[in-house]
Amino acid sequence: MDSRAIGIFDSGCGGLTVLTKLKQILPNENFVYLGDTLNFPYGSKTKEEIIQCSIKNVEFLISQNVKIIIIACGTATSQSLDILKEKYDIPIIGIIEPTVSYIKELDLKEIGVIATEGTIRSGAWEKEIKKLMPNIEVINKACPMLATIAEEGKAKSKEGRCVIKEYMKPFKERRVKNIILGCTHYPIYEEIIKEELGYDVNLINTGETTAIFTKNFLHSENITANHQKQREKIYLSKNTKEFKNIAQNILGENLALFVTL
Amino acid sequence: MDSRAIGIFDSGCGGLTVLTKLKQILPNENFVYLGDTLNFPYGSKTKEEIIQCSIKNVEFLISQNVKIIIIACGTATSQSLDILKEKYDIPIIGIIEPTVSYIKELDLKEIGVIATEGTIRSGAWEKEIKKLMPNIEVINKACPMLATIAEEGKAKSKEGRCVIKEYMKPFKERRVKNIILGCTHYPIYEEIIKEELGYDVNLINTGETTAIFTKNFLHSENITANHQKQREKIYLSKNTKEFKNIAQNILGENLALFVTL
Repeated sequence: MDSRAIGIFDSGCGGLTVLTKLKQILPNENFVYLGDTLNFPYGSKTKEEIIQCSIKNVEFLISQNVKIIIIACGTATSQSLDILKEKYDIPIIGIIEPTVSYIKELDLKEIGVIATEGTIRSGAWEKEIKKLMPNIEVINKACPMLATIAEEGKAKSKEGRCVIKEYMKPFKERRVKNIILGCTHYPIYEEIIKEELGYDVNLINTGETTAIFTKNFLHSENITANHQKQREKIYLSKNTKEFKNIAQNILGENLALFVTL
Repeated sequence: MDSRAIGIFDSGCGGLTVLTKLKQILPNENFVYLGDTLNFPYGSKTKEEIIQCSIKNVEFLISQNVKIIIIACGTATSQSLDILKEKYDIPIIGIIEPTVSYIKELDLKEIGVIATEGTIRSGAWEKEIKKLMPNIEVINKACPMLATIAEEGKAKSKEGRCVIKEYMKPFKERRVKNIILGCTHYPIYEEIIKEELGYDVNLINTGETTAIFTKNFLHSENITANHQKQREKIYLSKNTKEFKNIAQNILGENLALFVTL
């Protein structure tokens, strides 16, 4: 038993898609979320910059007395997870390993991956996938504008749609049936992607895979909590006009936000 | 005579399109430029937030001992120029008045305006245009993603093109011949806009109109400088990976950047 909260961070609002899955799957846990809106977007930052941001985020969450930290951000996972794990004793979970373990069970011949430029460039998804499934074909597509458009609350605008149309081309041509949403902002586009592809596609939500992985981890380490009423605190490193709207859309609740740093 | 520099600010790199015109038209002046990258984008901020950012920017430029300040940002001009003029003694020039005075000479029946959401919502362009040309028809189009796409260095990407296609629809249908680029980021899209419209269009660059206006102002006030070698200093409120590339594309020079705040 460990009644402390689960800490989560992302570059902005994307990680809320992970938080919402965590809340469903872990109804007796509390959560502290940090959206590093001050430093958004991570996707176009250097590895060194992302590591610096991730360290700050982890230290903030540790100061909030969390028992485990989830990097609810594809870019931060791909660039900083190894270093953070080495530097800190607290358990840290990224979104790549849980997702790749899940895919292994599907026994696929090919898999699509969409993510930010930095994440695709790092090859982190492909490396992790090939480690467990050496014969699978990986079709990568960097989507540099998607997280930014979502963060500005424009995911469902005409601009969002026309950018999705562009990014989906390599998958549509080959009718790729399974695509990893390798950035936690992307579940916001789920419907639009399905409409654009027009065939039956399985969009793999890293929030879901990460939440299941986290649940198993808490049980195996015997550090679950048993709160009757789930609580969450959402911190931002910079107040943005759009965050509250997006957060309410994703979480479906009236939220109190706290600005920090 | 006044040998002090001309101060310029923008939310990011857009104002560099104004700086480049100022440098051409005023070869004996020095410049201090501040890109408020920390608070980018202004287009989705409230009026109050934009005023606060503008005040900080003006105070930084005053601390750099400039003789005049140019708001090289459509959004900041539309939301904060009046208040800044009241608050400070230093002459402050926005991009709207110089552009509208220029258009008056063209004697047009209709004019297109593209700008950020905040600027279009404020009605600042339309109000100023109607003041001088009460019978002209103004066709406004808010382009919420354009400044952001430019700031991320993606103006010439396929994403940039498909967003431009969307935003140009109201002008293409009516074959609008004169369009004000009401955000200083937009000259970066000049070629793409011309290609998308496909007819002979006059895109009014606020950098050019503002530079001419500034030159006339310096002469009328007798505060020109006479430097043999033009110097400029470019400050950012936050270092971004793309800024240097974009700046070099716009200014065509190898630049030293300084991070402040």
